[in-house]
Amino acid sequence: MSTLAIGQKASLTKRFGAAEVNAFAGLSEDFNPLHLDPAFAASTPFERPIVHGMLLTSLFSGLLGQHLPGKGSVYLGQSLSFKQPVFVGDEVTAEVEIIALREDKPIATLATRIFTSSGALAVTGEAVVKFG
Amino acid sequence: MSTLAIGQKASLTKRFGAAEVNAFAGLSEDFNPLHLDPAFAASTPFERPIVHGMLLTSLFSGLLGQHLPGKGSVYLGQSLSFKQPVFVGDEVTAEVEIIALREDKPIATLATRIFTSSGALAVTGEAVVKFG
Repeated sequence: MSTLAIGQKASLTKRFGAAEVNAFAGLSEDFNPLHLDPAFAASTPFERPIVHGMLLTSLFSGLLGQHLPGKGSVYLGQSLSFKQPVFVGDEVTAEVEIIALREDKPIATLATRIFTSSGALAVTGEAVVKFG
Repeated sequence: MSTLAIGQKASLTKRFGAAEVNAFAGLSEDFNPLHLDPAFAASTPFERPIVHGMLLTSLFSGLLGQHLPGKGSVYLGQSLSFKQPVFVGDEVTAEVEIIALREDKPIATLATRIFTSSGALAVTGEAVVKFG
């Protein structure tokens, strides 16, 4: 395994369409019409259905578990701040960046961010991960 | 809409089996073998495949969006601390409890918890939600 260092990044781009949002609604039991019903969404300030925030942030799980730190990582904690909506069907880029490494244990802190296709910061936060 | 008050709770019990874990792997792009591969999991301290932490916490999205505060809720933030693994196929109970209400804005803070079927605290944290 390569050595981890502060500043290392990994990213992933994905589009969540109605099929993915519907699948996540079933997994999470979150059938909030803001995510699923264009007529309801039109009555809100968002105007169009938005992707569940927790579906967006599931990409952090993918990045941490597959890419950085990678296979065998164990999630210890995550903070999330939802800044901007992401509309169903829009592409997003999730990014993780190592910002701290403990000296006593194999534990890393990563900045975690989701950007919209126009580069706006949609979600920000930090992950704490044990790697092995 | 009923008035929200500190101490109000909502909960949801669900079992995440291999089908749900596989579906979430596709949505999150997290194909970490710790979640999907019994042979790999057997080589880890967990011994058996564990549910993705972010799949467990998706239940908070469901509770907040459907039950408390309910329809039309907008997620502002979430902190998560993963305390115990949940094995694939085990039942979990997710619970949200209002612990603070802002006086100036319709914003609530909720304690968020996931318990295993034996009552152990698997995930803890707090959600901040705008309701309307």
